[in-house]
Amino acid sequence: MREFPFAELLRPELRDLTPYAPHSGDYAIRLDSNEAPDLLSERAKARLLEVSAETAWRRYPDPAARALRSALAAHSGVTPAEVVAGAGSDELIALLLTALSSPKAEHDAPVVLTTTPTFVMYQMSARVRGQRVLEVPLDADWDLSESGIRAAVRVTEPNLVFIASPNNPTGNLLSRSRIVTLIEALPRSLVVIDEAYVDYADGNQLDLYRQHPNVAILRTLSKVGFAALRVGWLIARPALVRELDKVRLPYNLSSPSQALATLAVTELAGELKATVEVVVRERARLSAKLAELGFRVTASQANFLWVQTATPAADWFDALKQRGILVRSFHPRGGRLSHQLRLTVGAPVENDALLAAFGELLHA
Amino acid sequence: MREFPFAELLRPELRDLTPYAPHSGDYAIRLDSNEAPDLLSERAKARLLEVSAETAWRRYPDPAARALRSALAAHSGVTPAEVVAGAGSDELIALLLTALSSPKAEHDAPVVLTTTPTFVMYQMSARVRGQRVLEVPLDADWDLSESGIRAAVRVTEPNLVFIASPNNPTGNLLSRSRIVTLIEALPRSLVVIDEAYVDYADGNQLDLYRQHPNVAILRTLSKVGFAALRVGWLIARPALVRELDKVRLPYNLSSPSQALATLAVTELAGELKATVEVVVRERARLSAKLAELGFRVTASQANFLWVQTATPAADWFDALKQRGILVRSFHPRGGRLSHQLRLTVGAPVENDALLAAFGELLHA
Repeated sequence: MREFPFAELLRPELRDLTPYAPHSGDYAIRLDSNEAPDLLSERAKARLLEVSAETAWRRYPDPAARALRSALAAHSGVTPAEVVAGAGSDELIALLLTALSSPKAEHDAPVVLTTTPTFVMYQMSARVRGQRVLEVPLDADWDLSESGIRAAVRVTEPNLVFIASPNNPTGNLLSRSRIVTLIEALPRSLVVIDEAYVDYADGNQLDLYRQHPNVAILRTLSKVGFAALRVGWLIARPALVRELDKVRLPYNLSSPSQALATLAVTELAGELKATVEVVVRERARLSAKLAELGFRVTASQANFLWVQTATPAADWFDALKQRGILVRSFHPRGGRLSHQLRLTVGAPVENDALLAAFGELLHA
Repeated sequence: MREFPFAELLRPELRDLTPYAPHSGDYAIRLDSNEAPDLLSERAKARLLEVSAETAWRRYPDPAARALRSALAAHSGVTPAEVVAGAGSDELIALLLTALSSPKAEHDAPVVLTTTPTFVMYQMSARVRGQRVLEVPLDADWDLSESGIRAAVRVTEPNLVFIASPNNPTGNLLSRSRIVTLIEALPRSLVVIDEAYVDYADGNQLDLYRQHPNVAILRTLSKVGFAALRVGWLIARPALVRELDKVRLPYNLSSPSQALATLAVTELAGELKATVEVVVRERARLSAKLAELGFRVTASQANFLWVQTATPAADWFDALKQRGILVRSFHPRGGRLSHQLRLTVGAPVENDALLAAFGELLHA
């Protein structure tokens, strides 16, 4: 059979891309994906099943996700008209990139500004849509730098800016004054502050959303115990929400995801908080012990630690993997990431195993 | 607070669009969305909950959806490498439009060819991405016409062609020879045959996929009792599947949707078949009774009927609505759709109620 020349139809940008491939395989301990430890009570698990039992399997989900939007709005301290829910932050990033893709000049690809390092989906999602990506390097403390912001703003006016605070993979909050500098330097760009890890942080940036009309906020349930549901939400002005609803697939969220996420942020909100408290306590303990072992650990406001290694991170990654512990390393990207590990804060017993492995490897 | 000029950033196409707004409100009988009737056994419902109970809520879903892909492939008679799963056909349509959007000539928007009337998401999804849509009108029998195909092919070479067979909202299969004419006239376009309703049809078009390298097939679980899960799949050549996986959000399908859809097409496949048998029997009964009442009913290969009304469809729609029965009417689109109703074949008791209402309204 003759071959179909579909390569001609493909966006040219796809040629050089490889699909995002999260690590697979079996590991006793997975501390690579920033999932929360398994701390849900039996009562909570029973409630999740009781609510599942009410699903009308044959029916389409509510296309407006009314109950979920209201619950997420109340959970976040905003109104339902300011909320769009999607299949994780990922879908909302894609939605923003599709909707806000008007070229500034005719035939000019829209530009997306972000930092490096940060969550990889901002630039991945932009690239597959043929949009240009400008990455501002974070400074030596993994923070936004005034000079970096100024340099970026001089060369382009992006449609969208994505920053994460707490940042992934570095775990720190970006400095407020520099976020404000960025917001004010780009009054005609939408600045999206990704707060995926906000539950583990002291405070949030919702006041910046309230003060600046060009700010939107991303949130998710994935980091606080409900990654399985794929529910994230964007907090944005109602006029923008209405436009995003034109691009959103009408039935983007399944009935179970809508109902169970609603349960999570209402009836189970206390359990989410309890999980966060355990993780924050463990974060302090793990961080102190790693510092005792001689590692440089960035102060974390997330549910993971960003740890500098004296020897290549690749070696640590492999050695831990051999002991059945999967962590995250960015060594294929080289540069200053080649001596950094990202360690999810796990359950106490997992953190003990991780510390024991580090201790043994240091003295091997 | 000054207003943010986000309208400048929006794709210009969005200005004239209104969001897709499925009908909401409470109705005793909803025959508007082509959902299957509630015929699942108690045993099947119990199994759905048993599988739900195994969900690791805190964990991300399998990004490769391996179990689901294998199950869908076996269910469809293809290999897992030929399957991409998504949040309903909707997500796969969007994925194809994003991936296969290379302009034919520089700065030329890619073109999408489809029929009219047909499923509205093809053109909606193309338009929000700034792609041009060419609609080929179906003939008097709601079939593809040779002259329509020839006229369309003369003016453009589309990246993507979307046809539905059985077609929605008309319910008929498009003629095989004309589908083949279309496929052969556009050897450099990907022709997607949407078989959302294939379970209710005599035969499928999988052989066209096997014979023609430029064909792909869309399927879904939404019409056979599992619309709540939002699971559809595309059957395509492995080389194309690999490219679509670059554009697909890595965690596009939640864990419950993956696990329960897998259950549906394996252990519960017999129940799906039983549901289809009841609906096909009811379709014949409903169709005959409506013909007796004097309506012209297009021969249906789907789980709905396409019914011509002598008086405006809008009046029928309203009168049925007042009796608590919601059906689908396309009268705002005017033209020959203004005297057509789309009636989902419901459970026997719902169909009885619908027939009674028609009878009363005819004699009122």
